[in-house]
Formats: sequence, structure tokens, C-alpha cells
Amino acid sequence: MTDRRPAAPTGEDHLIAELFRPIARHPGALGLIDDAACIAPPPGEDLVLTKDALVAGVHFFPEDPPDSIARKALRVNLSDLAAKGATPLAVLLAIAIPKDMPFEAMAAFARGLGADTAAHGVPLLGGDTVRTTGPLVVSITALGTLPRGEMVTRSGARPGQAIVVTGTIGDAALGLALRLEPKRPGFAALDPAQRAHLADRYLHPRPRLGLAGGLRAAAGGAMDVSDGLVGDLAKLLAVSGVSGDIDAARVPLSPAARAAIAAEPALLEVALTGGDDYEILATVADDKLSSLGVYATAAGIPVTVIGRTGEGAGLVVKDAGGASLTFARASFSHF
Amino acid sequence: MTDRRPAAPTGEDHLIAELFRPIARHPGALGLIDDAACIAPPPGEDLVLTKDALVAGVHFFPEDPPDSIARKALRVNLSDLAAKGATPLAVLLAIAIPKDMPFEAMAAFARGLGADTAAHGVPLLGGDTVRTTGPLVVSITALGTLPRGEMVTRSGARPGQAIVVTGTIGDAALGLALRLEPKRPGFAALDPAQRAHLADRYLHPRPRLGLAGGLRAAAGGAMDVSDGLVGDLAKLLAVSGVSGDIDAARVPLSPAARAAIAAEPALLEVALTGGDDYEILATVADDKLSSLGVYATAAGIPVTVIGRTGEGAGLVVKDAGGASLTFARASFSHF
Repeated sequence: MTDRRPAAPTGEDHLIAELFRPIARHPGALGLIDDAACIAPPPGEDLVLTKDALVAGVHFFPEDPPDSIARKALRVNLSDLAAKGATPLAVLLAIAIPKDMPFEAMAAFARGLGADTAAHGVPLLGGDTVRTTGPLVVSITALGTLPRGEMVTRSGARPGQAIVVTGTIGDAALGLALRLEPKRPGFAALDPAQRAHLADRYLHPRPRLGLAGGLRAAAGGAMDVSDGLVGDLAKLLAVSGVSGDIDAARVPLSPAARAAIAAEPALLEVALTGGDDYEILATVADDKLSSLGVYATAAGIPVTVIGRTGEGAGLVVKDAGGASLTFARASFSHF
Repeated sequence: MTDRRPAAPTGEDHLIAELFRPIARHPGALGLIDDAACIAPPPGEDLVLTKDALVAGVHFFPEDPPDSIARKALRVNLSDLAAKGATPLAVLLAIAIPKDMPFEAMAAFARGLGADTAAHGVPLLGGDTVRTTGPLVVSITALGTLPRGEMVTRSGARPGQAIVVTGTIGDAALGLALRLEPKRPGFAALDPAQRAHLADRYLHPRPRLGLAGGLRAAAGGAMDVSDGLVGDLAKLLAVSGVSGDIDAARVPLSPAARAAIAAEPALLEVALTGGDDYEILATVADDKLSSLGVYATAAGIPVTVIGRTGEGAGLVVKDAGGASLTFARASFSHF
């Protein structure tokens, strides 16, 4: 038998076997040794598909903890599913790894992804691991399911509905600003726990999967807030063909965000137009608000009414005195 | 209404609207204006999922025609589906675009992807468009479907089966070698049409989707040959727990590959161990070979028996005289 060639594992095979096979235990992943994964979707349900890519230096800092990068890449995709009313079915990962990324950093990335897929109850089924001469690129595809025809779209808003958001707005954008401009007066007013809160919200989005059923039951239009509340709401209103008014004073803020904005009012614009909230923005008919509230309470997810839709087009953001606010930049774009 | 903010489209929105919306006409793509896509899978079928990423300078040349890059990225994923016996359902695209990539190149990429998704009858449902400071990264996720439980795995080979491949082997690897070392004596022997054939096979894989049903009906184990015939076969045998013998002389070669190898015998190793064939490698029980042949003839896809599986482990590649061949490198790895 000395002539017989063993199956010589390549570097890529080793990396997959050591890092990713241990976190891909679903039988449909086939131990990551096959060309593809296999899974039976729930009978009679629609598939909801999303795919977001994150690039080092654009969507996260290259020096962010690798396990946080993995969690963020996963969660921004799960957030899309949540906003559509879907239950996660599976995720796939493609990662382009810089040539100088240490093995330990890759291992930390894989551990973070493994812990977070387990925590969210969504199996990693497969993907691809490639080298790049450029920055780390993480692309995750998330598949979700929901009862046929019940996906909540962006374009489902109608005139005369309440505009609601989950959680608090602006923490992640302030967390990013804190890293970029830590000496701003607004941040000087914060205690260490408040700074840590903002920093954590930037690193670790919280996909509102617990509200998926509530959105299917109650929402007109919905989306997750990824590029800033004001810009994203303007998009939702536009594709729905309605107008909207929100009161800046009703936008839910964390104590940390509130303290920073109190010390430096210019940070309100950062909070309202910055990205990375990954909260859910939805419109809800008045007679369905209580139903959404039941789901929200059961899931422990705060939901706040911040305004109303109307006939016509465009978005007005009013300050506490009723005057319209204008912003230099309504939403975030990489282009 | 002068106070009302229009939904200001971002650069990314413009890019998606101009380039990708026109090629994503399936209703489930929702015009690419939503967070996610939606599609109803065929009832009672399994989902087959694959996600391959390609990086400029690693998997293709940065100067390759952008429409060819798009076609290759799509086809390597469809090839995975074909090898598993699946019918394509949908694809998603994530593309990390270098800051200096001209708009016209992006447009050519989108046109190529649009033409190729249409030609393969698979809708583009969504994805993500991001900027990178590094090389172009193209990640495609392909979803396929097949009757429940019928996915053809790599590990299904059994002793005493025929080892078969589709099409011809080595053209793409020789096409790559021709670009890297055009002055090699083997290539001097080729006429322009033969050179063009090899170059085209490197740029444009041909996913063998027409054989999917035949593989479900007849194959033991199967995979697509992406990292070289010898290395990929060794992997298939190892995960199946069987051995294999193939005759190098029976490996199907195109006239161009045959001419190059005749002029420079060292190119045989390139053909047998180089990557990017995207042909299908399968094992087939003797009593099912004729059934596979019926499918192959109907699909116009040549299938050639190149060896047999056996008890034990390891792969022997024999030359025309029956001696074992050894190779410096059995398969391609980026790591």
C-alpha cells in the first residue's frame, strides 16, 4: 500500500477542520466536508433570505476583538430576518482572511461565531474560507422562514399608522463617535459604565428576533435601523408612498445617550442619523398597537411610539418645541 | 411641504438601483429595496446551500473582464449544486468593491451576472454592495432544491464502483498556466484556437446542471472538481472510506490539452492536479452506469470512466504502462 496516496489535507482543509467544524454540528452541515449543506425547510413556509457583508475599516475596526466581529456579522443578518418577521433557519459564512491574520485571531472569530450561533439557535451550515491581500471581509447569509405570504415588507406602511421603534436609538452611533472622537464634551460627561454601554452597543447589535411574531401580527411596514433612524425611516415612507412625522423628544434614548446629548446637544443628530442601531422600525395601525405590545412585553423588548404616518410624502422630524429639525446627513452610506 | 425630507438615496442605493435592480426581476427580490428577499421553496423538497467567495488576485486576475468574473463567481456555486444533484432555486450576491473600480467595470460585472443568471434560469434575489480598500471580493450564495433525502454526498462512494468524470479535465489549469507561463514549450505547440479554448475554460466554468438528475439516480459519491482531479478524488475516497485506482490515460482531455501535453509531458501533472475544472467526479455502481449514460446523453454531457473504487484507502494513479504516478502537489490550496 505504500504507493497509495493519502488524502493530503490542504491548509484550507485544516483551517476548516480545526476552527469551523467544531461550531457546525448540525447534521445538514455534513461536517463541512461536502460541497454544500442540506436542510429541510418547515413545510408550507416561505424562505426569507438576506446577505450582508462587513469589511474591516469600513464596518468595524480592524482592531475590534475577532469574536465581536463575528457576532456583529451574524447579528446584522439576524436583525434583517427579525425585521421581516422571520425565524432563523440557518446561516452560511464566507470569510476572506488577510494573509497576516494570526491563527489565534481566526480561532477567536470562530469561537465567537460558534457561541453566538448557539445563543441564537441558528446552525452554521457551511461556507467558504479564502485568503485576501486586503482587509478582512466577512459575508454571512442568513435564511429564515415564516408562514407563507406573511413577510413584513418595507413598503407596507399606510397613512394614519403609528411609527414605532424598539429599544433605544443612537447608542451604537454614539459608541462609534466615542471611539473616533473620545474628547468630545458630550463624552466627558459620561461615567465609565455609560461609555462602556455605548461602546458595547456599537460592537454587539441585538437582533430583535423575539418580536418577529409580533411584527407579522401587527406591523404595516418594517425594517431594521442600520443606516440611521432618520434616513431609514425616510426610505420606508418613500417606498410605502406615505409621509411621516416624528417627535425627536419621543425617540427612546438610553441614559448614556441622554447624558451625552444633554452635555452636547449636537450629539442628538449623531444619534438620530448615525448607523448601526439594529433596532426595528415599524408602522402599526392603531388597533394593532395593543397586540404588538403583548408580544413586546412577552419578549422583553421595549417598543416606543415616536410619530405617525400620513398622506403624501416626506418625513418631518420635530423638536420639543414643534419646529422642524434638519440634518447635514440623513443616513450613512459607504459610497 | 418644503420642510419634508425626501428619501435621499445614498451612493449605495444608486448603485443598487442602477446596476443590480435591472437584473433582479424575480418578484421575491422585491426590487432590492427591502432588507431581505422572499421565495417559496418547492413543497417537500430539501434545500441545498453553498457559498463560495472569489478574491481578485487569488481566484481570478484583477484584469479579467468584469463580466467573466461575475460569470465565474456564479458558475462555481452552480457547479456545487449540480454535483449534489440539486436544481438551482436562487442566488444572492455580496460584492466588496475596491475604491478605484470604475463604474463601467461595475456595470459590466452586473450585466455579466444578469446574463448568466438568466441563462442558467436562476434568479438573483438580493445581497449586499460594500466598499473595500482591498481587492474585489465576490461572494455568491446559491440555493438549490431536490427531492427529500436525495442529496448526493461526497461520502457515498462504495468499493467496487466505477469512477467517472464529466467533460474534459485540465483545460482550466492549463489555461491558467498559459497565462502565467505563456512561453512554455507545451503552449508553443498550440494554435490560436487551442489557446483560446484553454483560456476560456479558465475564465468560464460550465456547471453540469444537466446531470443533476442522473447523479441522484446513479451516483454513489460525487463532488465537483475545483481543486484538481487527483486531490479532489483523494478527498472523496477518504471521506467515503474506500480506495481508488485511476488510469491517467483514460482521463478525458480536450484536443488542446492533449496537444500541449504531447509537446511537454510535464503538463500532464498540471492537468491532473490543477484546479478550476468544475467538472463532476462521481462513483457509480456498475448496474447504474447505463442509467447515468442515458441522462448524460440527454444532457449532452460526456461522461468517462477513469477507474474503480476498492476496499481499503488511498488513491493510485497509473500511467499507460501501469506504473504509479506521483505528483509534487496533489491539489490546489490558497493556504
